[in-house]
Amino acid sequence: FSTGAPITATLFPGDGIGPEIAESVKQIFTAAQIPIEWEEHFVGKEVDPRTQSFLTWESLESVRRNKVGLKGPMATPIGKGHRSLNLTLRKELNLYANVRPCFSLPGYKTRYDDVDLVTIRENTEGEYSGLEHQVVRGVVESIKIITRQASLRVAEHAFQYAKAHGRKRVSAIHKANIMQKTDGLFLKCCREVAEKYPEITYEEVVIDNCCMMLVKNPALFDVLVMPNLYGDIISDLCAGLIGGLGLTPSCNIGEGGIALAEAVHGSAPDIAGKEELWEMSESCCGMSSGGGWVRCWNLVDWRNKHRNSSLNVEFGDAKNMANPTALLLSAVTMLRHLELNDKADQVQNAVLKTIAEGKYRTIDLGGKSSTTDFTNAICDNL
Amino acid sequence: FSTGAPITATLFPGDGIGPEIAESVKQIFTAAQIPIEWEEHFVGKEVDPRTQSFLTWESLESVRRNKVGLKGPMATPIGKGHRSLNLTLRKELNLYANVRPCFSLPGYKTRYDDVDLVTIRENTEGEYSGLEHQVVRGVVESIKIITRQASLRVAEHAFQYAKAHGRKRVSAIHKANIMQKTDGLFLKCCREVAEKYPEITYEEVVIDNCCMMLVKNPALFDVLVMPNLYGDIISDLCAGLIGGLGLTPSCNIGEGGIALAEAVHGSAPDIAGKEELWEMSESCCGMSSGGGWVRCWNLVDWRNKHRNSSLNVEFGDAKNMANPTALLLSAVTMLRHLELNDKADQVQNAVLKTIAEGKYRTIDLGGKSSTTDFTNAICDNL
Ligand SMILES: CC(C)[C@H](C(=O)O)[C@@H](O)C(=O)O
Ligand SMILES: CC(C)[C@H](C(=O)O)[C@@H](O)C(=O)O
Repeated sequence: FSTGAPITATLFPGDGIGPEIAESVKQIFTAAQIPIEWEEHFVGKEVDPRTQSFLTWESLESVRRNKVGLKGPMATPIGKGHRSLNLTLRKELNLYANVRPCFSLPGYKTRYDDVDLVTIRENTEGEYSGLEHQVVRGVVESIKIITRQASLRVAEHAFQYAKAHGRKRVSAIHKANIMQKTDGLFLKCCREVAEKYPEITYEEVVIDNCCMMLVKNPALFDVLVMPNLYGDIISDLCAGLIGGLGLTPSCNIGEGGIALAEAVHGSAPDIAGKEELWEMSESCCGMSSGGGWVRCWNLVDWRNKHRNSSLNVEFGDAKNMANPTALLLSAVTMLRHLELNDKADQVQNAVLKTIAEGKYRTIDLGGKSSTTDFTNAICDNL
Repeated sequence: FSTGAPITATLFPGDGIGPEIAESVKQIFTAAQIPIEWEEHFVGKEVDPRTQSFLTWESLESVRRNKVGLKGPMATPIGKGHRSLNLTLRKELNLYANVRPCFSLPGYKTRYDDVDLVTIRENTEGEYSGLEHQVVRGVVESIKIITRQASLRVAEHAFQYAKAHGRKRVSAIHKANIMQKTDGLFLKCCREVAEKYPEITYEEVVIDNCCMMLVKNPALFDVLVMPNLYGDIISDLCAGLIGGLGLTPSCNIGEGGIALAEAVHGSAPDIAGKEELWEMSESCCGMSSGGGWVRCWNLVDWRNKHRNSSLNVEFGDAKNMANPTALLLSAVTMLRHLELNDKADQVQNAVLKTIAEGKYRTIDLGGKSSTTDFTNAICDNL
């Protein structure tokens, strides 16, 4: 890969702050002379007013063809009949493993300074099956599906990842003491895969216990692999340890070797000058990686009518305030996937150095810099 | 209640360290002249070798009759056909709400010094339905059940609790953006109940977001109410913030006004001088409330055969080392339930003072005291 011919990668800047932080990545990649040509597609809530399409076939084909891409945050419209674009992408591209490295940022102080772990989340089934129904009035059920195929696949990815990155231990997270069949099957698959990697320590940790240990002593963990919902919960918990979703990279691994890196924070319409009420369950905006409160907008209209809540922050008009770190570090995982490790190190070091120096930090990190000032500072540090 | 006639309360000392920490409660209650007569029943793995019964009808009847009780940790035997005694009690006594106050202990340093919240967990349904099956080879499903009745009941308890304890906010924790029907019904019920308590702020927080915020800034939360599994996860996470399950009280509210307080940590056979391999998914021993690693024993035999793991600690012979704090503070919640508030304050203050003074602390808290020395110190502080 590293011999010069440019690699084409798909770029979905996304909604809200998405285009601003995507701009930041492009600028830094150009400055670092990274041989990537972006194929940009506008997936998200502002696409094509004529067809009301949020996601086109061409956009999906672009990722399938390039096998590598980067996506910003995408909002989901409120109301029935709109499916989360994030979930649609996971499904359409069969993005079976969501990999989130999580490490303390040198010089950016939180209550923890010793976090260095990776969560690997099964991303296609489990509690996200979409199977739910009312049994009788007042009694509803939802179905969690665990398959051998998906469990083996994500476990294999976890051990391969551990091996490739020199990591020593894989912990499978579960609640098999209660869900003996579903989580039991997940564990069985992990054990099968573990047998093939004798050099890597394998262990199993019950999810409640895992969360307690993570907040007490995250240094005990290395690579964690788990079913979908546990991954959702634990990866956010881990992000909280080091400052928030505005700082943590993520990469989705899909069928046929696809790698779609993504910033998992929300589109933060409040700091992108947008006023509409779109669903913000995909909240956790770039803004809130620092000390602020992360809003929970998915029930925002109901709540706004009924209660005042500290969870709600008014939409503002601010622009050029977003922190591009999560998207940048996600782009770095993409470079590593392409085995452009020197370039990956170069960008990552420049980002971390800029944050550590502290002179240029975005507002969410307690600084005063705009997105562009922060980006320029990173370019200077390349 | 407080007029002198003694109240009869059931006591299940439980397994492992259970009898030692129950002894500590009895001693302190006597010293504080609390008008309680214990009706002691030995529920747990060492009961009645002739009948192989772990739980007798008389024990259940005792709680039903007294309506108030205290239980220590109970181990669950490894192997099929043995049901967790904790789960059996929840089911038989219809213990629908598990209430866990969680607050930073003055003078006992963790990374957090500002925790003061209460988790209220639906305790009878959700992911704990026990409904699981194989659909076809390699595909298994488990069913989560949410009912209107159980959701209203736990929500009602949460708001009543908030009101009675002068708490200002109730947050319902959910993943209704994914499980719209099940968690959606749960939220709908919470909203209905919230309408009746206009003086209490009600809000809804997505579970992943909630975990991130809890580790960043737990002071944002007050009372949290949630379905079963989320409660399992979040209550342990919260316990981790203040030091571990060895320090957090818990009380189960059941049908007909039953209150069964319990220490939710495990039976810690390693420090109770036991050698058998019993299932320790109910691990998190009193020992590990301090800096140590909490073991995950539920797959211990498989793991011991296959891997060395730092999760495994050898069984020892130590005795009189357990920290009775969680059981003591649980007993305090029982006193509050009985509206013996002066006595509750007296015991709680003596426990906290002893820990704060730091002269007598059990080993898990970095001290050197035995259970009995710590207990005597608390009696002196009454
Ligand atoms: C927005 C939501 C549907 C999504 C999820 O639950 O997977 C998000 O929390 C994430 O982690 O990507
Ligand atoms: C031991 C286990 C079955 C139990 C649960 O999952 O409820 C425990 O974790 C708890 O919180 O009481």
